[in-house]
Amino acid sequence: MAERTPLTPEEVQEHLSKLPDWSTDGDAITRTFRFKSYKDGIAFVNGVANAAEAADHHPDMALGYRRVVVTLTTHDAKGITQKDFALAAEIDGLV
Amino acid sequence: MAERTPLTPEEVQEHLSKLPDWSTDGDAITRTFRFKSYKDGIAFVNGVANAAEAADHHPDMALGYRRVVVTLTTHDAKGITQKDFALAAEIDGLV
Repeated sequence: MAERTPLTPEEVQEHLSKLPDWSTDGDAITRTFRFKSYKDGIAFVNGVANAAEAADHHPDMALGYRRVVVTLTTHDAKGITQKDFALAAEIDGLV
Repeated sequence: MAERTPLTPEEVQEHLSKLPDWSTDGDAITRTFRFKSYKDGIAFVNGVANAAEAADHHPDMALGYRRVVVTLTTHDAKGITQKDFALAAEIDGLV
């Protein structure tokens, strides 16, 4: 299954060039989102959760005050896959 | 103001004895909550967010799959205060 094959570092870089707010440590992709209010951040978390449930792919989220860090990886593939970039693009569409 | 005076380590331990699911690293108190479903975890996050807004005191939350780690500290006091334990007790009441 393609979903279980991690992308190569070159493929990851190619995808990242289209999602410039995301970065990688090699094992996952991450983006920090900042908000005007705490409630805006919570609304965003709910939007990400809805997208995650629809995709059956669940990012880690770190919620601070008016700040949410989203981290995506594909555990089955032990790396970054197309699924992560698909959900990242959808999450970008929420803001 | 009492809110800006951190509790002593002895006071923190006394409070923790009443909230046995919480632990401390000295600077903050933390508890890991586990859920049957991803949606249950998200509902909990919203409950915590409502309590946080009402208290004007905002914990950090780390959301994984069916798991939420809540961390409380009082930045103004550079330590743990009564406010943290008050909100921790309220959060315990959500589950």
